[in-house]
Amino acid sequence: MTASPDSVRIVEVGPRDGLQNEATVLPTEAKIVFLEKLAETGLREIELGSFVSPHWVPQLSDSAEVARRLPRREGIRYTALVPNERGMWRAIEAGVESVAVFTAATESFNRKNTNAGIEESFDRFRPVLELAAEHGIRVRGYVSTAFHCPFEGPVRAEEPVRVAERLFRLGVEEVSIGDTIGMATPPEVRALCETAASRLDFARLAFHFHDTRATGLVNVMTAMERGVRIFDAAAGGLGGCPYAPGAGGNLATEDLVYLLDGLGIESGVDLDRVVEASIWIEEAVRHPLPSKVYIATRASRTGAGLDRRRSRDLPSRRTGS
Amino acid sequence: MTASPDSVRIVEVGPRDGLQNEATVLPTEAKIVFLEKLAETGLREIELGSFVSPHWVPQLSDSAEVARRLPRREGIRYTALVPNERGMWRAIEAGVESVAVFTAATESFNRKNTNAGIEESFDRFRPVLELAAEHGIRVRGYVSTAFHCPFEGPVRAEEPVRVAERLFRLGVEEVSIGDTIGMATPPEVRALCETAASRLDFARLAFHFHDTRATGLVNVMTAMERGVRIFDAAAGGLGGCPYAPGAGGNLATEDLVYLLDGLGIESGVDLDRVVEASIWIEEAVRHPLPSKVYIATRASRTGAGLDRRRSRDLPSRRTGS
Repeated sequence: MTASPDSVRIVEVGPRDGLQNEATVLPTEAKIVFLEKLAETGLREIELGSFVSPHWVPQLSDSAEVARRLPRREGIRYTALVPNERGMWRAIEAGVESVAVFTAATESFNRKNTNAGIEESFDRFRPVLELAAEHGIRVRGYVSTAFHCPFEGPVRAEEPVRVAERLFRLGVEEVSIGDTIGMATPPEVRALCETAASRLDFARLAFHFHDTRATGLVNVMTAMERGVRIFDAAAGGLGGCPYAPGAGGNLATEDLVYLLDGLGIESGVDLDRVVEASIWIEEAVRHPLPSKVYIATRASRTGAGLDRRRSRDLPSRRTGS
Repeated sequence: MTASPDSVRIVEVGPRDGLQNEATVLPTEAKIVFLEKLAETGLREIELGSFVSPHWVPQLSDSAEVARRLPRREGIRYTALVPNERGMWRAIEAGVESVAVFTAATESFNRKNTNAGIEESFDRFRPVLELAAEHGIRVRGYVSTAFHCPFEGPVRAEEPVRVAERLFRLGVEEVSIGDTIGMATPPEVRALCETAASRLDFARLAFHFHDTRATGLVNVMTAMERGVRIFDAAAGGLGGCPYAPGAGGNLATEDLVYLLDGLGIESGVDLDRVVEASIWIEEAVRHPLPSKVYIATRASRTGAGLDRRRSRDLPSRRTGS
């Protein structure tokens, strides 16, 4: 076991992995304001959108405009998802400086998600990586269903590690290992880290946990103890199901930052400023965001919230515990 | 560091710590059905109610009737909160076999919660313990605000440990250490365990985490690594604020059981049956319960839920991660 790191880098995926799961399609301006607020939190990498087909993800059909209009800031990298060469050309035209390609650890999921097998995904990635090299664009890679697949069940650690190895060999700079349906538990995270230990560079390995079953933070702890130091998260826990209040989607940035602050691990991210960004996007998506730290922090800051905080945090008089 | 335990005992506090924070006062019959459903889950200790003044906690004013009517089952211990000798007499008259007394690690909180200083709490406990000994009643003790106090801020580990020592000396069989406002992080849990290590019997030490800031499970993991093997939890995460969907109150029994199952740690508790109990009480309290595992499990079991599960668990087609 490795000691926990002194610092962790958080990759903010709310504007992409969060918003793509929303029922509401937001105006471009709303996304830019959200991104600008996130840029003020200390986050150093933020996903701004996706160049997949607008037919499949209408929520992000304006990513080119977002990428063009968003003011760049020193020290912040904005990344966009690209599925193939066509998407890569759109990203290049929009002036994107960093892209992410995505595949999965399981064949069935990759087919459902991308209409291609894993092998075919890699065929699609080659021209993307070539264009990236030509244009000086950084490439990140996602490996979905790294622990459990909705179609194939539990996934052996060997599968995502092998896919990650291939991504690195192809020239991807950083790989993010995803617990796509949020079922992973610490022994599975440990097994993956152990399988990866001699084969992947942990300085370039991220984990992307979904908090669907409340295991997001225990999984982060487990991965950190094994030396992982990059984690994806979404402001407010954006990406939870809008029809099920409290349902977990992406691990919430606020929940992660609160834990890291408590552990004394530097992330450079200001919790209160993430809450500011979440307050804004919560109004835009028109449903409550699930992050517990967001809810507790916001409640403690507002007048009405103060009463709410009291009713939640303080047991009634003469009630114990 | 001690290795994680092979088994953990869960103390279900939903019918007491959960329901006492609800806006709705439930009919006695509803509580009994809830308790009966919980009794079928494999839980071995369940809090059935509280003998505090009905003036302060009207939600539990019928605890005597609940205690009298609830059928007893082999292997399940039902516990009721008692604040003082008067409450203890009511508990005895109602035929309760186990009671819990409660105080705090901080003077200010104890005064607000019980209208008494910590010293005076102990004065009140003495006759309770004497009556318990006479009547063969088991006594549990709560130490609230063990990590953070809403009035005094961060709490030194020495304070709750000293109060717990006094409770044990008084004859309390088991002490539950409470993160009342749900602010604790792993280093604080570790510090408390280390301070307690040579002074308290870990076989009789429970932790009572609130999940207000999403740290419930990381704190459980941390305490387990230090040898703690008793945890309080509430079905569905009952006890969250009814006005803030997703707000965390008590650590949810389902979330805890899912983690323990994943870790291969035996709790004897059947997750699906806890979900059954939570489905029932969720209808009774008329607001969504916050447990993520509850939401995910329930959604995967119902027709309407299946669609919801899909929309939450599965990324849209061609979207990655």
